[in-house]
Amino acid sequence: MSVARDHAAPPGYVSREVERWQHGQVTQAEDCIAEEVPVAMVYNGASFAVMMATPHDLDDFALGFSLSEGLISEPSQLLQVERHALLEGVELAMRVTDNAPGAKLAEQAERLLPGRSGCGICGTRDLENVIRHHHPVGAGNTITRAALERARHQLQSRQPMNLATGAVHAAAWADCEGEILLVREDVGRHNALDKLIGAMTRAGHDPQDGLALVTSRASYEMVTKAAGAGMTILAAISAPTALAIELARSAGLTLIGFTRPDSHNIYTHPERLQAGAAQG
Amino acid sequence: MSVARDHAAPPGYVSREVERWQHGQVTQAEDCIAEEVPVAMVYNGASFAVMMATPHDLDDFALGFSLSEGLISEPSQLLQVERHALLEGVELAMRVTDNAPGAKLAEQAERLLPGRSGCGICGTRDLENVIRHHHPVGAGNTITRAALERARHQLQSRQPMNLATGAVHAAAWADCEGEILLVREDVGRHNALDKLIGAMTRAGHDPQDGLALVTSRASYEMVTKAAGAGMTILAAISAPTALAIELARSAGLTLIGFTRPDSHNIYTHPERLQAGAAQG
Repeated sequence: MSVARDHAAPPGYVSREVERWQHGQVTQAEDCIAEEVPVAMVYNGASFAVMMATPHDLDDFALGFSLSEGLISEPSQLLQVERHALLEGVELAMRVTDNAPGAKLAEQAERLLPGRSGCGICGTRDLENVIRHHHPVGAGNTITRAALERARHQLQSRQPMNLATGAVHAAAWADCEGEILLVREDVGRHNALDKLIGAMTRAGHDPQDGLALVTSRASYEMVTKAAGAGMTILAAISAPTALAIELARSAGLTLIGFTRPDSHNIYTHPERLQAGAAQG
Repeated sequence: MSVARDHAAPPGYVSREVERWQHGQVTQAEDCIAEEVPVAMVYNGASFAVMMATPHDLDDFALGFSLSEGLISEPSQLLQVERHALLEGVELAMRVTDNAPGAKLAEQAERLLPGRSGCGICGTRDLENVIRHHHPVGAGNTITRAALERARHQLQSRQPMNLATGAVHAAAWADCEGEILLVREDVGRHNALDKLIGAMTRAGHDPQDGLALVTSRASYEMVTKAAGAGMTILAAISAPTALAIELARSAGLTLIGFTRPDSHNIYTHPERLQAGAAQG
């Protein structure tokens, strides 16, 4: 896949004036604000959806989104991504092979378009199409609790956009020792995970050989995307939802929540965490 | 509007077994988990969208969503809401007047359905349709900084679902003294705001006479929904995005972020905050 850019990549945040009230004093200040722009996902000339996203790492987003949402069934089907800066936002004009599901958008627009969207659910019209069941994920590797804590600790200093703005989510990939290999950030947590999936695919990381760590909650669509990418361990800093637990159980995914310095909860498939290696 | 229920309202969370690791010890525990279910929004028999939501206060959600998303142009156009528990989720079967925009869904399905969804953006296919500009909001009342802090402080103990689960957002409405009048919770922040808009409409609160306080970030769709409901002050506990600031400025909305015990940032229209009444 080649990525053509028609302008320099924005940093993901901008500077804005703000009136800051602190301890009874008002000051004028400059604040770093996360960018959030409409990104149109276009396949062989046909629009599929518009996502609100941070305009950074859009090549990873194009690949990860296309895989997660089933527009391509394997990475090689995405031939080219062009980024066009338009007045209203950014257009990602993608070229996919003729046998990719996304190639049929133009001719099947009426049937395909209303039913899918990037946050996994919105825009879906009928209840029967909402919950996507994946084949069970593979056996995967095991990790130690120390590796989980190591990844959590490392991630804190690996979120440049969030450190600047306080407004964006991160999704990270760590190896089985807890060493973080990739981090992607976005104003949308599902976008951050799609970017990570794209980056992992490009880097050739095996989704069964490590863990994904996300700074957000673990909702339905986060589990769906992780399982769809073949990941076997998903750890969230915050809470899961009941539906996320149910889907993780049926997909064979290890779901961890409330990942904190000295504690975490394992909601499904705890067999992938080695109890013996626990270190306080 | 009358609301018919065919089963008792669920509490918004359920109990699930969890393996809890804490300070080197593993225990089996029961955890309160937020419910997240597909909720189909159906108007006069035609499906519009499916939202992932907490199945609580769904009558408020039906009214607020219908107003926010333009399916009705005034509250009286929503005649009835029936809640049907289905295998795949919940269906909100709404009956609207013949002159309501939502009444045309069945005949205009191909045109109307793909272009809208409940989180304000996903499912929209074309960039031109993404950003919705509202008429500028009214003058509204002013508030003191002490009132803002009072509302923030009160909200902390007014989120029963989040206290139980740690997984849900809240949207609150406070009067100009900072006294909280209404709180609604949901796994989705935009759903919580839609529920609040519905509840405010039913209670007859004037959106120009008070402030909305949300526990989440202020993204594009939060500002769009608040301005669309005619609110004049929106305060978020977390950060805004750049697009949210831009929309708030053009809509005439006062946007406050990082609302904390002794500080906050005012991003747009600070004239509605009375500096003189600041109290440390």
